[in-house]
Amino acid sequence: MTGPVYDRIAVIGCGLIGASVILAARAAGAVGQVAVADASAHARARIEALGFADLVTADPAEAARGADLVLFAVPVLAMETAARAAAPGMKDGVTVTDVGSVKAAVAEALAAALPPTCLIVPGHPIAGTEQSGPDAGFAELFQHRWVILTPQARTDTPYGAAVERLTDFWTALGAHVELMDDKHHDLVLAVTSHLPHLIAYTIVGAAADLEGVTQGEVMKYSAGGFRDFTRIAASDPTMWRDVFLTNKDAVLEVLGRFTEDLQAMSRAIRWGEGDKLFDQFSRTREIRRGIIAAGQESAAPNFGRDLRPSTDQPAAPDTKPQ
Amino acid sequence: MTGPVYDRIAVIGCGLIGASVILAARAAGAVGQVAVADASAHARARIEALGFADLVTADPAEAARGADLVLFAVPVLAMETAARAAAPGMKDGVTVTDVGSVKAAVAEALAAALPPTCLIVPGHPIAGTEQSGPDAGFAELFQHRWVILTPQARTDTPYGAAVERLTDFWTALGAHVELMDDKHHDLVLAVTSHLPHLIAYTIVGAAADLEGVTQGEVMKYSAGGFRDFTRIAASDPTMWRDVFLTNKDAVLEVLGRFTEDLQAMSRAIRWGEGDKLFDQFSRTREIRRGIIAAGQESAAPNFGRDLRPSTDQPAAPDTKPQ
Repeated sequence: MTGPVYDRIAVIGCGLIGASVILAARAAGAVGQVAVADASAHARARIEALGFADLVTADPAEAARGADLVLFAVPVLAMETAARAAAPGMKDGVTVTDVGSVKAAVAEALAAALPPTCLIVPGHPIAGTEQSGPDAGFAELFQHRWVILTPQARTDTPYGAAVERLTDFWTALGAHVELMDDKHHDLVLAVTSHLPHLIAYTIVGAAADLEGVTQGEVMKYSAGGFRDFTRIAASDPTMWRDVFLTNKDAVLEVLGRFTEDLQAMSRAIRWGEGDKLFDQFSRTREIRRGIIAAGQESAAPNFGRDLRPSTDQPAAPDTKPQ
Repeated sequence: MTGPVYDRIAVIGCGLIGASVILAARAAGAVGQVAVADASAHARARIEALGFADLVTADPAEAARGADLVLFAVPVLAMETAARAAAPGMKDGVTVTDVGSVKAAVAEALAAALPPTCLIVPGHPIAGTEQSGPDAGFAELFQHRWVILTPQARTDTPYGAAVERLTDFWTALGAHVELMDDKHHDLVLAVTSHLPHLIAYTIVGAAADLEGVTQGEVMKYSAGGFRDFTRIAASDPTMWRDVFLTNKDAVLEVLGRFTEDLQAMSRAIRWGEGDKLFDQFSRTREIRRGIIAAGQESAAPNFGRDLRPSTDQPAAPDTKPQ
C-alpha cells in the first residue's frame, strides 16, 4: 500500500454496511478522512461515540463536500432523496457509488438525482449479517466476499479510471470485485439473496401462528432445521421491503420457478414417489460442496455454531420432563 | 454419577446419530458395553477403526443379545426390518428406543416387529448436522438439545421405569427430555424440521438449473442468503425421503399453510404493497430472539461462521475482475 486509495470519502447512511466500510477502510489504510451523514440522531450519536468518523452530520451535502468518493448506504428507495440532498456538496469528477441490493433501480435513481459531472459506479457487496445499525459494523465483513460493480455503458478515460480506483478500494478492504450488467445482477441476486429472504420471512412467519403448535414449541425444537431460516428472517425490514419493491420482476420470475418445483415435490410426497424425492435430495449436496470450495461458506458442521465456545450460554430449559 | 445408566446397549445402525450416542454415552460414563450392528461393510470397517464399540457385527440379533437398551438409528422406513432382525436376540424386558424423525409410523413399525416383552419407548433427539456416517459423530451433539420421547399409552410399573431410565440416559448425555404424544410430535416437527428441509431442498434444487444464471454464479454470490439454505439441503437423502413418506399428512398440512402465506407475499410484491411487506418482515425478528433466549441458537452474526478462525481457508476466487 503506497497511501490511501481515497483521501476523503463520504458515507451517506451509516448502518451495518456503512460502518463496516469505514472500519475496513481504516484498518486497510485505504482512506484518509471520513465524513458521515445519517438522518437518524440516534445513529449519529452512536457514530460519534464509536469515534470512527472525522465529521458526523445530518446533512448529506456537508458530508459530501471535498470527498473523492461518495458512498450511499441507505435503503434502495431512499437512494434518490439522499443523492438529491448530497448533490450540492459534490465536487466535479467525484466518484459516486452505493451498496444497494438492487442495481438497475439504483442506477436510475442516482442518474436522475446527480449532475453529469459525477462518475456514478453502482455497487453491491455480497456481505452482511442479520444485524443492523452502526454498532453492528466490523472491519472483516468484506474479507473473501464478492463485490459486484455495475458500471454505466460509457468508455471515456475518467470513468474507466473511476471504476478502476473503486475496484482498488474494495480490493484493499479484502473483497473480490466483479463487473456485471445491472439487470443481470438483479436476476442473479434474486436467486441467491432475494428469494431466500422472501422464503425465510414467509416460513418463519407461517410457523409463528400455526394452529396446533405453539410458538414456544417452534422455538424449543428449532434445532431440527427451522433455526437456520430465522437468521436471514431477522434482517432489516426497511431494506428488504425496498428490495422487493424495486426488483419485482426478477423476484416474481424466480419465485414462479420455485413454486413450480415445490408443487412437484408436494405431488411426489402425496403420491409416495420415494425415488423422485431421493433423486432431488441427492443433487443438492453438490451445490453446498461447491460453495465451500469457492470460499463462501464454512465446512464445519452446523456452520460451526454448536461447537464454538460461545458467549451466549444456552439458557436452562423452561420446561421440565413431565 | 453412581455408575452407568445401562450396563450394555446395542446400537442398530451407526451413522452420525448412532455414533454420537455412543461417544456421548462413553464420555458421560452412562454405559458399560456397546454393541453395534450396521448393514454396511464400509460403516463397520470405519466403526472398527474408530474403536468405540466392544462388538461390531452385521447381525442385529447378535448385537441385541444381552443388551439392556436397544437403540435403532436407521432411516424411518428401515426400522421395521431392522427390528425384526434384532428381535431374536432381545432379552425379556429390554428397553427399545429409536432416534427417528417421525414417531407415529415408527411406533407402529416397532410394535409390529417386536415381541410384547419389549418395553418400546420411541424417541427423537432434535439434534444433528448436515453430515452423515459414523465419522461425523461427536460426543457434544446432544448438549442443550431436546430429546422428545413418545411413550405408549400404558401405565404399568416396568414400563414407567423404562421411560424414567431412558430419560436419565439422555439427560446424562447433556440433553433435555420432554414427553409428548407421537402424533403431536409429528405435527410439531413437520413445522420445525420437515417443512424447512423440504423448502431448502427445493430452493437449492431450483437455483441449480435456472435459466439465465449459471451454477457458478449461484455459488459465488451465495453469501447473500442462499448459502444458509444449503446446509440442511446437504442432509442424508435416504433419511429425508423416509421422513416425507411417513409423515405425509402433517407435512402436506403445514406446506399448504406455507404456500398460502407465500402467495400473499407474492401478491404484496406484485401490487407494490410496501406496508404489508414491512409488517411481515418486522414480526419475524422476535422469533429468532426467542430461539436464542431458549439456548437453541447462536447469537453471533452469521452464526459466527465468518469470524471464527477456521480450518477451511477460503479458496482463491476462480474469476478475476474483468
